[in-house]
Amino acid sequence: MALRDFSQSTQALALNTATLGHNLDGYGAGWPIEKVIDACARRGIAGIVFWRREIGTQAIAIGERVRAAGLRVVGLCRTPYLTGAEAPATLDEAYASVEMAAALGTETLTIVTGGTEPGTKGVKESQSVLADRVQRLAEFAATMDIKLALEPLNPMFGGNRTCLFTVAEALDLCDRVGAPNLGIAIDVYHVWWDSSLTEVLANTGHNRIFGYHLCDWLESTQDMLLDRGMMGDGVADLKAIRRAVEGAGYEGECEVEVFSAHNWWQRDPDQVLDILVERFQTVC
Amino acid sequence: MALRDFSQSTQALALNTATLGHNLDGYGAGWPIEKVIDACARRGIAGIVFWRREIGTQAIAIGERVRAAGLRVVGLCRTPYLTGAEAPATLDEAYASVEMAAALGTETLTIVTGGTEPGTKGVKESQSVLADRVQRLAEFAATMDIKLALEPLNPMFGGNRTCLFTVAEALDLCDRVGAPNLGIAIDVYHVWWDSSLTEVLANTGHNRIFGYHLCDWLESTQDMLLDRGMMGDGVADLKAIRRAVEGAGYEGECEVEVFSAHNWWQRDPDQVLDILVERFQTVC
Repeated sequence: MALRDFSQSTQALALNTATLGHNLDGYGAGWPIEKVIDACARRGIAGIVFWRREIGTQAIAIGERVRAAGLRVVGLCRTPYLTGAEAPATLDEAYASVEMAAALGTETLTIVTGGTEPGTKGVKESQSVLADRVQRLAEFAATMDIKLALEPLNPMFGGNRTCLFTVAEALDLCDRVGAPNLGIAIDVYHVWWDSSLTEVLANTGHNRIFGYHLCDWLESTQDMLLDRGMMGDGVADLKAIRRAVEGAGYEGECEVEVFSAHNWWQRDPDQVLDILVERFQTVC
Repeated sequence: MALRDFSQSTQALALNTATLGHNLDGYGAGWPIEKVIDACARRGIAGIVFWRREIGTQAIAIGERVRAAGLRVVGLCRTPYLTGAEAPATLDEAYASVEMAAALGTETLTIVTGGTEPGTKGVKESQSVLADRVQRLAEFAATMDIKLALEPLNPMFGGNRTCLFTVAEALDLCDRVGAPNLGIAIDVYHVWWDSSLTEVLANTGHNRIFGYHLCDWLESTQDMLLDRGMMGDGVADLKAIRRAVEGAGYEGECEVEVFSAHNWWQRDPDQVLDILVERFQTVC
């Protein structure tokens, strides 16, 4: 299947702000959020994905600022965990994250599920609890026209971060819940190793993919969380994954999300943005 | 399916010496290999699995010493990598590892495949190279009555350590090669998250499982390689996995393999052995 005409255009590209080091103080080099927005606009990047911690009480203003610069808010990261020992006792914070997404003016809120439910073993009971909570959250989100994107994580994040490990499992959970505003997010870091991915996506009903996240898997990953590679620097077959994702009907942006404490987060944000645009246009 | 009668007996139990800290100088507390053998025999543990580095030129003598103590050498870890940047240029070292297994008097040599082939992306080309090399190695191993056990690794080890990530993929590779002495090893650390495991194993021809490795997945794993949990301390559903493994026809030992630099490797080996026996009898 041919890629879309604009496949190498920055109009298919979005920045996840984590790529500029959101875990450091402010963004890399202390950039305020306005500077990030303008730097994306200057490069023709189509959209931005924020994290809740960056938004605070400024959701409406930030959303308007993004649109005034000619960009879209492509998504919001993310709900609190819905399962596992670190999940809040109620869904109140999850509902608030839906409200924040609506105030920002984005369509899509990502879900990282959380881990294994206390007192249980394995993943199946946690997935049942998850299905119930996601169903309630999806009903609430539908009232605000927000779509929820379940993101399966690399199995190294089992235990305390996720109870969904593959795209197939995430799609099964969508089928189980059956909410029209529930789909999945596909992140290269989490799925690159899955040799069944193309086949799984080929058998998927259209419009279940609500997000596609780009980075690369470094041949020798040093840290589970904060050693992602820039596209082209690793071993993921980025073009094959994108073909599979777009072949399954995805028409949204490709969102660059590189957690990299010791490499990319140490660089000048202008350099990071220049390089990610170039890599997107050449290796993705 | 009922577990075998001796399911909680130490006659179903083997020690992988890595559990006593083989990456430290000698074993934990500087035990010589004879002391490890006798400590296992005293507890009724049925067998031991060694690593090549411990054997050197003493394979025949160590094998005889194990059998004189009333134990079996249950396996040898492992071939060198067969794919990826760190794989030797030829199979000579892999052939030598087969010869070492034969000299030790064990039936089973484990294969950790190695990572993505240089100059390629993704895993499929690496799996093709792997199939070719495993086929040649299996032919050589057959002449010495050695079985090869392909071990799929947790996807966090993609890139530089493995190009097989699931039991289903490892079984597919066995089918592709078609050698009667080629099967798989199933390690809790690598497969606990895989919700398709029971179904995959239920559809497997018997006698493809040549090894079953026990540990636990800690809820909050701190280190990819060296933070495994002792059985019962984590979130893996150990009983369900064992039922699936034995339901698929496995009748060999359960081999305890706990890499744990900051916990179990710091303890007195007698204490580690006492606890692993107790945990095997109560939670596995």
